[in-house]
Amino acid sequence: MAFDYSTVFRPGLPPPAKRWSGFPKYNFVGGHNDGAAVPVQDFIDAAESVLKREGSTLATYSLESGAQGYRPLREFLAGYLNKSTGMQQTADDILLVSGSLQALDLVNDVLLAEGDTVILEEAAYQGAIQRFNRLGVRGMGAPLDDGGIRADGLSNILDDLKKDGVRPKYIYVVPTVQNPTGTVMPEERRLEILKLARDFDVPIFEDDCYADLTFDGERPRAIRALDSDGRVVFCGTFSKTIAPALRVGYLVAEWDMLSRMSAVKRDGGSGALEQMVLGEYCPAHFEDHVSNLRGVLKEKCDVMLETLSAEFGTAAEVSNPAGGIFVWVTLPDNVDTMKLFEVASSEGVAINPGAEWVADPKTGTHKMRLCFGNPTIEEIRDGVTKLAEICHREFGVPERGANIER
Amino acid sequence: MAFDYSTVFRPGLPPPAKRWSGFPKYNFVGGHNDGAAVPVQDFIDAAESVLKREGSTLATYSLESGAQGYRPLREFLAGYLNKSTGMQQTADDILLVSGSLQALDLVNDVLLAEGDTVILEEAAYQGAIQRFNRLGVRGMGAPLDDGGIRADGLSNILDDLKKDGVRPKYIYVVPTVQNPTGTVMPEERRLEILKLARDFDVPIFEDDCYADLTFDGERPRAIRALDSDGRVVFCGTFSKTIAPALRVGYLVAEWDMLSRMSAVKRDGGSGALEQMVLGEYCPAHFEDHVSNLRGVLKEKCDVMLETLSAEFGTAAEVSNPAGGIFVWVTLPDNVDTMKLFEVASSEGVAINPGAEWVADPKTGTHKMRLCFGNPTIEEIRDGVTKLAEICHREFGVPERGANIER
Repeated sequence: MAFDYSTVFRPGLPPPAKRWSGFPKYNFVGGHNDGAAVPVQDFIDAAESVLKREGSTLATYSLESGAQGYRPLREFLAGYLNKSTGMQQTADDILLVSGSLQALDLVNDVLLAEGDTVILEEAAYQGAIQRFNRLGVRGMGAPLDDGGIRADGLSNILDDLKKDGVRPKYIYVVPTVQNPTGTVMPEERRLEILKLARDFDVPIFEDDCYADLTFDGERPRAIRALDSDGRVVFCGTFSKTIAPALRVGYLVAEWDMLSRMSAVKRDGGSGALEQMVLGEYCPAHFEDHVSNLRGVLKEKCDVMLETLSAEFGTAAEVSNPAGGIFVWVTLPDNVDTMKLFEVASSEGVAINPGAEWVADPKTGTHKMRLCFGNPTIEEIRDGVTKLAEICHREFGVPERGANIER
Repeated sequence: MAFDYSTVFRPGLPPPAKRWSGFPKYNFVGGHNDGAAVPVQDFIDAAESVLKREGSTLATYSLESGAQGYRPLREFLAGYLNKSTGMQQTADDILLVSGSLQALDLVNDVLLAEGDTVILEEAAYQGAIQRFNRLGVRGMGAPLDDGGIRADGLSNILDDLKKDGVRPKYIYVVPTVQNPTGTVMPEERRLEILKLARDFDVPIFEDDCYADLTFDGERPRAIRALDSDGRVVFCGTFSKTIAPALRVGYLVAEWDMLSRMSAVKRDGGSGALEQMVLGEYCPAHFEDHVSNLRGVLKEKCDVMLETLSAEFGTAAEVSNPAGGIFVWVTLPDNVDTMKLFEVASSEGVAINPGAEWVADPKTGTHKMRLCFGNPTIEEIRDGVTKLAEICHREFGVPERGANIER
C-alpha cells in the first residue's frame, strides 16, 4: 500500500513540480546566457591553479574564509564594485550567496513578516513578486517611466501609506537595466529616490543583477554609492555575467544587516568550488569577458528588435533595452499573453506572460517578456516569427508581418 | 545619520552572526574532514574533462538536466546507492540539493507547520534540532541503545501521541553511524521501526549522511530499501565522503514527495560546477577514495579514543563509534559542558556541548561531542590533553590523567 503523502503535507503547499522534459525549441524565458560565451578554457585553468594551491581547504566548511564566503572572491568584488559602482567597500562588507535568489530570501528573512508592505516597481522581477506572495507580504507597485521608478509616484505611495500608518519594510528596485523594462535610472533620479527613502525612513534593496551588462559599458553610480547613511542593501550576481548554473551572487550591506543575513543563512556556506574558480578567474579575466559578452548580447538584442519590428510591426510596442538579456513587449489589449504563453509553449516557443512580471497582474495581461541571451540569432528570428504567427492565429494580431498580409 | 535596521527587523530574528576570526587551534567541532584526503589532482582532472566536454552548458540554469540536478551525477548515485544500500532507484528518484542541510529544509518545508510534532532520536543532529525549534515544531526524543532507536521506546511514544490525537509528521532517524552516538542500527531493528511506522501510518526521514564511512565498510540495508510502501524519504551527502565545502547532497523519495520538494526548492538549482565535477569524478574514483578515507578516519578515531582513555580515564564514558567522524562523551554529572565549552573555546579548544545535541537539553548538560575528522593526529593528542586539564581545573575531574595525579 503506497503511503499517502497528501495526509502529511503542510497547509498551503505549492503544486508539485513537473518532470523536466528538456528546453523548448525557442527558449525566450529564464536568465539563461549565451553558451558560446562561457569562458570554458579559462575556467579549466582557474580550477587547476586554485585547486593545486588550496584544494585541500575544501575539507572545511567555508574553506578558510568563514561564512561570508571565499575571501579572494570578496576581495575581487570589493575592488570591482568600488570601481564600477562608486561604492567604498571592503571584503568585510560582502556576503557571498547562492545566486541572487538567495539574496532575496535572506533580505526577506531578516525584514519581512506576514502582513508587511514593500514597494516595488510596477513591472518587476517575477522571483521577487512570487516571494512576496508566498510570504503574505503586500507589494505596492510604483509607476515607471524611461528613468525607472518615478519620484512623484513613489512619493504618493509613501504619503498614502504614511496616512494609513504603514511604514513599508523596504523599496525593492532594479535601477540599472530594470527587469523587465530594460531602462537605466539616471543618477539624478537615484538621488530623488534616495531622498524620499530618507524622508520616510525606509531602506532600499538595490538589485543590480544586470548592471554589468549595459550595452555601452556605462552605468550611473549605484544608489548604495550615493547613500551616506547605510540604508541601501545591494545585491549582484555572476549568473548573468558568467553563467547562471554557477549560483554565485553577493550581498553588500552594513554589518548590522549583513550579520543578520549571515545568521539566517543556515546552509553551511554556498558552494565553494564555484567561489574558488571565480575568485581565481575574475581578477585576470572578468572585465574583458564582460566587455565581450556585452557585444554578443547587443547583437542578439538587435536581431530580437528587428524581428519583432518586422513580424509584429505597429501591433507591438517594444522596449529598447539599455542592456541585459530581455525585451518587454506590449501587445494590443485583446491579446491575452497567458493564453499566448500556453499555446506557444505547446508549439515549442517559451515566453514570459506579462501578468507574472507586474505588481498588479491585471496590468500585464497583454504584455510579455522575451529573453534573447540563450537562443542563437537564427532561433531568435525563427522563434519570433513563429510567435507572431501563433499570435495572429489566436488573436488576429499582428495583421501583417514581414510585409506579408497574414 | 546611520539607518537603524533594528526598526525594520522582523519579530523573532536570531542574534547576529559574529565576524569569523579563523578556526580554533584544536577544532573538535563541525563536519570538517581530513584536508590531506581531499582528492585534489583527480578533481583537477575531472574539472578539465567535464568542462571541456560540456562547460558551455553552464550558460543555462541547471545545465541540460532540469531542476533535479546534473543527470550523470544522479545516475552514478542511483547505481551506487542500489549497490550499497539495497534500494532500487533510478536517476529520476533523486533530487540533488545544496548539502544535507537543504535536504532537511526541503523535507520540513513540505511537511511541517508550526505546532506539529516529529519524533527524533533522544541524542540527535544539532542542525535538525535547531530547525524544529525555529519552526515551532515539537521534537519528541526516542530512547537509544547500541542499536539506535529502541523499538519499545518508539512504540510508547507513538502510543502516547495517538492517545492525545497527535499524528507525528515524521520520524527522523540517522540509523547508520548515528549522530552523535556513532551506532549502526541492525537490519532487524530497522524492520521493527519500519513496522511501527506502518502501524501508526507515519513516514520516516532517513538521514544517511555518514553511512559510507563505517570503518569496516559494511552497512545494513537502508530503511528505505526495506520499505515497500514508499514511506521513507532518504538523504545523503558528499560532505563527509568528499568535502563539506562542496555543498552537494541528495534526496531519494517517491515522486509524490520529490515533486513537492522540488517545487519549494526556489534557488534556481544547486551549484552546477560542483555537481559536474563530482559526476565526472565519482564513477571512476568514489569507492576507492571512500575506502581510503575510512582508514584515515579509523586511525584518527583510535587516537581520539586512546587519548580520551589516557587523559580522562574512568571519568569519561566514551562511545565506540562504528564509523564517521565523532565520539560522544558522557562526563560526571557535575561537569557542565556548556561552561566547559566556553572556557575551552577561550583557550583554543572547540567542543560541541551536549545540550545542543539532544532532544531534551537537560539530558545533555554533562555530555559533549568531539569530532576527529579534521585535526591532525598530533592535534587530537594535544587538544584532548588540554581539554582534560581545563576540565580538571574547572570541575575537579578527571582526577588523574595519563597516570599523573593532577
